[in-house]
Amino acid sequence: MSEKVDTLVTHAHLFTLQGDGVGYIPDGAVAIQGTRISAVGSTTDLMTRFQPKEMIDASGFAVLPGLIDAHMHTSWAVVRGVAQDVSNWMQAALAPYARHVTPSAALAGTRLNILEALKAGTTTLGDFSKPYPGWAEAFEGAGVRARLTPTINALQTGGMAGLKIGELYPLDPDVGQQAIDTALAFTQEWHGAADGRITTMLGPQGPDMISRDQLLQVKRLADKENLMIHMHVAQGDREINQMLKRFEQRTPEYLKELGYLDDQLLAVHLTEATDEEAALIARSGARMALCSGSIGIIDGIVPPAYAFREAGGLVALGSDQAAGNNCNNIFNEMKLTALFNKIKARDPEVMPAWEVLRMATIEGARAIGLGDQIGSLEAGKQADLILVDLSAPNLTPVLDAPIRTIVPNLVYGGSGHEVKTVLVAGRVLMREGEVLSMHESNICAEAQSEAEKVAQRVAADPIHNNMALLTAMKKGQM
Amino acid sequence: MSEKVDTLVTHAHLFTLQGDGVGYIPDGAVAIQGTRISAVGSTTDLMTRFQPKEMIDASGFAVLPGLIDAHMHTSWAVVRGVAQDVSNWMQAALAPYARHVTPSAALAGTRLNILEALKAGTTTLGDFSKPYPGWAEAFEGAGVRARLTPTINALQTGGMAGLKIGELYPLDPDVGQQAIDTALAFTQEWHGAADGRITTMLGPQGPDMISRDQLLQVKRLADKENLMIHMHVAQGDREINQMLKRFEQRTPEYLKELGYLDDQLLAVHLTEATDEEAALIARSGARMALCSGSIGIIDGIVPPAYAFREAGGLVALGSDQAAGNNCNNIFNEMKLTALFNKIKARDPEVMPAWEVLRMATIEGARAIGLGDQIGSLEAGKQADLILVDLSAPNLTPVLDAPIRTIVPNLVYGGSGHEVKTVLVAGRVLMREGEVLSMHESNICAEAQSEAEKVAQRVAADPIHNNMALLTAMKKGQM
Repeated sequence: MSEKVDTLVTHAHLFTLQGDGVGYIPDGAVAIQGTRISAVGSTTDLMTRFQPKEMIDASGFAVLPGLIDAHMHTSWAVVRGVAQDVSNWMQAALAPYARHVTPSAALAGTRLNILEALKAGTTTLGDFSKPYPGWAEAFEGAGVRARLTPTINALQTGGMAGLKIGELYPLDPDVGQQAIDTALAFTQEWHGAADGRITTMLGPQGPDMISRDQLLQVKRLADKENLMIHMHVAQGDREINQMLKRFEQRTPEYLKELGYLDDQLLAVHLTEATDEEAALIARSGARMALCSGSIGIIDGIVPPAYAFREAGGLVALGSDQAAGNNCNNIFNEMKLTALFNKIKARDPEVMPAWEVLRMATIEGARAIGLGDQIGSLEAGKQADLILVDLSAPNLTPVLDAPIRTIVPNLVYGGSGHEVKTVLVAGRVLMREGEVLSMHESNICAEAQSEAEKVAQRVAADPIHNNMALLTAMKKGQM
Repeated sequence: MSEKVDTLVTHAHLFTLQGDGVGYIPDGAVAIQGTRISAVGSTTDLMTRFQPKEMIDASGFAVLPGLIDAHMHTSWAVVRGVAQDVSNWMQAALAPYARHVTPSAALAGTRLNILEALKAGTTTLGDFSKPYPGWAEAFEGAGVRARLTPTINALQTGGMAGLKIGELYPLDPDVGQQAIDTALAFTQEWHGAADGRITTMLGPQGPDMISRDQLLQVKRLADKENLMIHMHVAQGDREINQMLKRFEQRTPEYLKELGYLDDQLLAVHLTEATDEEAALIARSGARMALCSGSIGIIDGIVPPAYAFREAGGLVALGSDQAAGNNCNNIFNEMKLTALFNKIKARDPEVMPAWEVLRMATIEGARAIGLGDQIGSLEAGKQADLILVDLSAPNLTPVLDAPIRTIVPNLVYGGSGHEVKTVLVAGRVLMREGEVLSMHESNICAEAQSEAEKVAQRVAADPIHNNMALLTAMKKGQM
């Protein structure tokens, strides 16, 4: 007597990511009931055991857990491409645009970014933003899984656009308190919403952007509410300079003294952390979000993820933001992470394909505190999975023995465009290349329209004359 | 009275790559007659001047010169994914497969690679291979432009698969002479074929793989026949060790003494060249082919292209081979080149988007000796051009002012899948995503079939038990 299920995905090159490797099952299948996985195994076995309402034939496809993007700023997608190839990126290139991104522009960016990420197989998005109307609803409506962090800082409106490089930002405790209150209210509304698809974290933007007292207040709140803290840590020389000026300590030492280093912390970037500082943070149990593409473009730096993992830490991948990474695509991050770390170590054996695939799936899930729900394909977990077309010329051929080629080709040869079908919590969000839960052309048109309005406001703001890239424009290089 | 032309491409975001920058023309147009460009300019202007048989509306598209891949080994595409994440890549991972790639497998790989490259906007392919039946015909038939280099070496059949790491390869002058004769015969048949679309170079595989006398013989032949020399130079510690053992000189010094350093030389990789050696080679007028992805994976090294260009040298991009880069896609190479060099210099201003776009187009064309024919869109040049869909979510929005976002987004956000239409020598090879000059599914099926046969031969060859990746297979990591 076979058991009734909603969906059976069959005949896949199945990578469950169970165990210590990639958990490959040839001619594999996944049975799904409601939002969860009922079973994984061979197609023959599951065809006998289960009677599905819908059968998805994955012949010629790799089936993997949905990819996890632990750190994004989706609102900046609306200004994709305005800031890169410059020093002092945040102040010299992004800030003049950032101050003109209205809530409606931010929302258009968020929708665009969810669409882009979903099409490239990302099913869990860790977004970081000042809340604005419609932010969480955009993720809820698109059907994706989200880990949302409302930004907490004590910076006055306008941010750092008017400041000289290196000048200490003025901190306003009232601004900080209001951000904390807003974050708490947001979390009370959204943590666990949409049948658990939407969860939240608390997010001091950085230790340099808030007072010591308010940073401690956030930590007490996180402990009380049992929330993780998602914070930029050692994010570039800008932050370290601010920390030394204001607190006379580098960030890792400061956080250690404050009792901030524990397994509730998702530390983002660690751009300027030494290997020793990274190891210190890893040994505390804190987790790392590694944004290879973004930090490569913005700083020309490979963060110490290798040292962090060697010290036993968990690393998740993040795509950061499109004004200074230009794409939000975990295939891109897997490839860049593997390559950048080989280069940093001058060793081709560092960060092989299977390790970065784990960072994008099961290790990433654990790093963001969702390891019991997502990141691998196994019975009881959420049915978040992707089908990747291996018949694309750039993923051909598919060899099984003596060397199986699929994982290295996905990591080094894939682009994300080969993802054709995506399920989140058992629901098909994209089928055979068509996004079902979002209206693609409307979302792109809305982003274009909002972006043009942002650009007009920037053009009318005298501050834009300081932008580093105007020289490149004048020279005909853009 | 308007002039009749075959094709008019209109309403493009046109990047001509004329001049010193990217040569942007808003609402631009290109008129094409036969194989050549008749004019470029504004759509309004060209619509008045020309009466086309066919009009291609490029609204919402970027139009660029076709991309140039200066260095490939297309035959290895058939073993994509069997060799990466290992030390001593060539001997420990590729060689056991390479010796079982038959001529028909090589041809299947070449066709696959041409297809993959064409779909990602590559119009000129610089291939390097031992000639086998159908090699040149594959490029001729696909309609792409090719710069073909028949491999010259004096290595005995079986190559280096049976040697210990570090052991001096035996050189056989008869093998060397035969390779020279074959190369000369190939060049006499193919140089200038297909209305000039197919041209050839002479290719000693590396200075370590042939005697000094025969290397000099190739140089005299190149001078006599007015051909460029395309050679791997300082290609990893393997080569340098061989050079020191055999000739007691590092490669650049050896080549300088031999009179090999001049503007006829396309020096590939320079993996192990110091900045000073790179500058020495650049100042001689020799050109560099930079394979960022491949050398990143194989060696964990960023070759000294920055130093080469600072010394005034011309640099072209190359994708090398799919067993150790895993894809042959110049969008990938542009992105990796920009990012790797920023990281190497720890400077985000190094190799901005526009510079790597020039390496993939006009600078690359000059580097491979075709600067008068391709690499920019201007009257009289060959009509090799690509249309890139800017409406893809990952390339949205398109902003024009104060900062124009298109080039950075193509380089950092594009993947090559956004290329929809490709023309080579005025002929449409791909239209709206459909390849017209090749049968995509047949080519993939043929590559799959040939690859499986190669894998079976490898499995039957005891030498495969030495392959480094077998450990990863056993551990469930692949």
